[in-house]
Amino acid sequence: MFSDAEMHALADVAFELADVARNATLPHFRVPNLFAENKFADGFDPVTVADRDAEQAMRDVLARRRPQDGILGEEFGNTNGTSGLTWVLDPIDGTRGFISGTPTWGVLIALSDSDGPIFGLIDQPYIGERFIGGFGIAELRGPRGTHPNAARTGVALSDATVFTTFPEVGTPDERRAFERVARTARLARYGMDCYAYALLAAGQIDLVIEAGLNPYDIQGPIAVIQAAGGIVTDWTGEPAHDGGRVLAAGSAEIHAEALRLLQEG
Amino acid sequence: MFSDAEMHALADVAFELADVARNATLPHFRVPNLFAENKFADGFDPVTVADRDAEQAMRDVLARRRPQDGILGEEFGNTNGTSGLTWVLDPIDGTRGFISGTPTWGVLIALSDSDGPIFGLIDQPYIGERFIGGFGIAELRGPRGTHPNAARTGVALSDATVFTTFPEVGTPDERRAFERVARTARLARYGMDCYAYALLAAGQIDLVIEAGLNPYDIQGPIAVIQAAGGIVTDWTGEPAHDGGRVLAAGSAEIHAEALRLLQEG
Repeated sequence: MFSDAEMHALADVAFELADVARNATLPHFRVPNLFAENKFADGFDPVTVADRDAEQAMRDVLARRRPQDGILGEEFGNTNGTSGLTWVLDPIDGTRGFISGTPTWGVLIALSDSDGPIFGLIDQPYIGERFIGGFGIAELRGPRGTHPNAARTGVALSDATVFTTFPEVGTPDERRAFERVARTARLARYGMDCYAYALLAAGQIDLVIEAGLNPYDIQGPIAVIQAAGGIVTDWTGEPAHDGGRVLAAGSAEIHAEALRLLQEG
Repeated sequence: MFSDAEMHALADVAFELADVARNATLPHFRVPNLFAENKFADGFDPVTVADRDAEQAMRDVLARRRPQDGILGEEFGNTNGTSGLTWVLDPIDGTRGFISGTPTWGVLIALSDSDGPIFGLIDQPYIGERFIGGFGIAELRGPRGTHPNAARTGVALSDATVFTTFPEVGTPDERRAFERVARTARLARYGMDCYAYALLAAGQIDLVIEAGLNPYDIQGPIAVIQAAGGIVTDWTGEPAHDGGRVLAAGSAEIHAEALRLLQEG
């Protein structure tokens, strides 16, 4: 579909987006009394100045370099394009982590066509890590050099490590479904935001289970994980790029095992 | 008690300990199929080669530079000294995080006398962050430069951010006590291991509540937090350097509020 030159050029746009998002977010990270407001009256969903600055900076790059493409962003919504390609942007995934100073939030960038993401990034500006997937690339560029990403296989669910954002999100039913998997797994860990998807792509963990996601929360991770050989679906085994309930797995075998447990009860 | 020269020399020993621990742990971080064994038959407590290599490397430094001091280490136990000072070492705090690839484990180092820690470090080798407390120092030396650590004050419990290792550890009673505080706080976050104490010292969060700790899990964090103006006690308000149930707080006011809720029920 794309020539090597086109893929190289599109990847270069994605890297510039991540660079400007780093510059926009880092000055607001770990400053005292970071501004946060309640986005929804019924819940705590802080939105920071950094979030908006970063998305605007990315939109400015796209207006200059890819005006023909659509944009779907967390902060400023949908902008139609004419190319059939859409940039899906989450300037700060993990705002709760961001305002707590944890280095596990990320800038999520996906380039998607009508079938879903074809290229994506999970970028952690503070550590200086960029997890990349698509156009033949599956790698982490980080403070300790560049490493290939490869999801790990051959791990039974009973030996697996599963990550989630529960107990912070999800309905009671969704949480019970997660716990059926967590009880069967060897190790369950919490609180890592989008960083969990990066760890799955890097072959460090086996499953990520979440619910209540938006498209911009998951399209970047889908590209990064699929490029590393992993699988991302919803809890019925269908494509997950519209968000909702998400199951990411290192292998088809453990994906099937977890899917069966999520669907029980 | 110590001259400036003595304090400088002791801090320099601590920094060398952290340096050798970085060198011993990083080669084992994020490698495929990291060796892990069950330390206890009844629970999952992986011990890695990295853990033992790092503590041995630190003990070798101390044998050369501070043979007169005692050592209490997670892996190799207690070594008596003659100086009245003890180095309290946790080569990898957060082994579950370590074997999952998360960058929130740490090397914990404290220098303690009979009253508790007088100097300490929380070191995160992958990110390259060192949180330092004692001998007049309260700072983070990290990838984005050096920043003073100052616990934040003036935050009511209803506006607070609280971190914990629950639901992974603790008895049902302990978890219920934590949840009384978490429900009252604005934001509860999970899964950060010792990194939560570092964030409290850096003024990013307000409370850390844990249970089932060992002395080497908490003495480094106590030194770092106290130097930044924070407070660490057990759940009865007594010194916490022997471990057990721990409450760390940014200010006396929020410490008192949380302590009252932990003691209800």
